[in-house]
Amino acid sequence: MWFTEKWTPHIKFSVEVKKHLYSEKTKFQQMDFYDSYELGRFFTLDGIMMANQKDEFIYHEMIIHTPMSVHPHVKNVLVIGGGDGGSVRELTKYPKIESIDLVEIDESVVKLCQVYLPEMTVGFKDSRVHLFFEDGLLFVKNTNKLYDLIIVDSTDPVGPGEGLFSREFYQNCYRVLTEEGILINQHESPYFAKERKEMQRAHKKIKDLFPIATVYQAFIPTYPSGHWLFGFASKKWHPTKDFKGSLSHQLKIETKYYNDEVHLGAFGIPNYVKKALNETE
Amino acid sequence: MWFTEKWTPHIKFSVEVKKHLYSEKTKFQQMDFYDSYELGRFFTLDGIMMANQKDEFIYHEMIIHTPMSVHPHVKNVLVIGGGDGGSVRELTKYPKIESIDLVEIDESVVKLCQVYLPEMTVGFKDSRVHLFFEDGLLFVKNTNKLYDLIIVDSTDPVGPGEGLFSREFYQNCYRVLTEEGILINQHESPYFAKERKEMQRAHKKIKDLFPIATVYQAFIPTYPSGHWLFGFASKKWHPTKDFKGSLSHQLKIETKYYNDEVHLGAFGIPNYVKKALNETE
Repeated sequence: MWFTEKWTPHIKFSVEVKKHLYSEKTKFQQMDFYDSYELGRFFTLDGIMMANQKDEFIYHEMIIHTPMSVHPHVKNVLVIGGGDGGSVRELTKYPKIESIDLVEIDESVVKLCQVYLPEMTVGFKDSRVHLFFEDGLLFVKNTNKLYDLIIVDSTDPVGPGEGLFSREFYQNCYRVLTEEGILINQHESPYFAKERKEMQRAHKKIKDLFPIATVYQAFIPTYPSGHWLFGFASKKWHPTKDFKGSLSHQLKIETKYYNDEVHLGAFGIPNYVKKALNETE
Repeated sequence: MWFTEKWTPHIKFSVEVKKHLYSEKTKFQQMDFYDSYELGRFFTLDGIMMANQKDEFIYHEMIIHTPMSVHPHVKNVLVIGGGDGGSVRELTKYPKIESIDLVEIDESVVKLCQVYLPEMTVGFKDSRVHLFFEDGLLFVKNTNKLYDLIIVDSTDPVGPGEGLFSREFYQNCYRVLTEEGILINQHESPYFAKERKEMQRAHKKIKDLFPIATVYQAFIPTYPSGHWLFGFASKKWHPTKDFKGSLSHQLKIETKYYNDEVHLGAFGIPNYVKKALNETE
C-alpha cells in the first residue's frame, strides 16, 4: 500500500505504508496516521503529510532554535497551530522561557499525536505549557497578553489554516508582540507554483508590517520540493547581524540539524527565490 | 503517462509525461528523453533522472561557480562526465579560462543532448572546449597535462560511473592537478541510505588524499530527497576562508541560484550530515 501526495497536478510523491493506523474526520479536517518503511510513523491532515518520524526534527529545530538564538531574552512564547507538539518540545528545552501558550484549533491533533507520535508531544507535560483549543485568528485578536516570540506552525493556507495567512492575523501578531518581538511562520516553498504564490502573498503582508522581514530555508525532504521556507519578521533583532552563536549550543541542547553555520547559511537565499520575493513589491 | 523513479525501495517520485521523445540503448547505458508538464524536457540514464529544464541550472551553477570563485586563476579545466553540457556551458562564461577538456565515456549523451536539450549544449561550440569520448578513469591515468580545476560531473556510482568513485581515480585526479588545484565532484546525498553510503565512501577516499576536503549542498528538488552534495577537495584554497565574493557577480554572469550568501551558506552543513561524514574516520 502506498500513500501518495500530489506535490503539483503533475508531480507525485509516494511512501510505501506498512499500516494505516488510524483515520478520523474531526470537526475541522480529515486526519490519518500511518506507519511506513522509510519514514516511520507519519500523519496527514486532509491528505497532506504534516510530520514524520524520520525528519520532523529538521522542521522543528529550524522553526524554534533560529529565533531563540537571535532574541536574547525570550520569556513568553505563543505557538499558533503546532498541535503535534514538535515546536513546544523544542521550546521547553530553554530554562529561561517562563510561559508557552499553544493555540490549536483542533483538539484531536493533540490527542491523537499523544497516542501515535508520543515522542513529539513530550513537551505538553511541562508546567509552563498552556493549551488553548480555539481559533488562532480569534485568539490573537482578543488577547491582551504580550509575547516575545510568536511561532506560526500552521498547515498550508487552505481549510483551517487559511486565516493564519491573512493580513488581519499578522496585524494582531504585531500588536501582541513586545517592542523586541519576533514572529516566525512556516512560509511555504519557492519551487512549485502553488507554494510559491503563497510564499509571495505571505511575504508581502508581513513586510508591510515589520521593519525586518526576511525568510530562511531548510532541507525538508518530505515537503514538496524539499526546499522549505520560514518567515523571520522582527521589530528589533536582525537574524544574522544580531546572531552571536547558537544558544542551543551554549545550553548543550542536542540538535541533529541546527548549528551556527546552518543558522547563517539558512539566510543565504538563491537568486530565483529573492526575485520571486521581490516581485511582491 | 508517468515517469517514476524509486528514490528508495519505499519512496517513489513521479513526473507526468507529455511525450516519450526518444529511447536508445547505447553501448554503455539506457538513455531516454521525455517532455513533461512540470519540469519541461528531461533525460534519464538507466532510468535515473539526470537533468531537466526546470532545475538543471541549480546543479550546474553550484558545481561550477563555487570553485571558480575560490581559485583565483583557473586556466585549464577538466570535466569528467557532464556530456549534457551544463557544466561546460557555465565554464565558458569565464574569459580567463583557456582550455576545457570534457571526457565523456558515452558519445551518445553529447549527440542526443544536442538534439533534445540544445540550450544545455551551447558551450560545446566554444573553441576552448575539447571533447574526448573515452573512459574518464583511463584518461586521468594516462594524461600528463596539468589542470587547475577538475569537475567530476558523474552519474551515481553504478554502471559506467562506478570507476569515478574509486580511490585510483581520485589519486590520479590529485596527480594531474596543479599545486593549487581543486577537485569538485557530485557527492550524492545524506538523507536516504543508499546515497548516504556512497557519500561516506567518496568522502573517506577524498579526505585521505587532499589537505582540504569538505562538502557543500544545494536544493535540487528533482534529485532524491532534494538535498544534494558536492565535494570540494583542494590542495591550497579554502572554500570559505579564501572566498572574496563571487567572481560570477564581478563578471556580471547572470546566475539564477548562486550568489555570495548562497556560496557561504552552502558550506553550512547540518549536524546529522557532519556526523555521517565523520563516521567514515
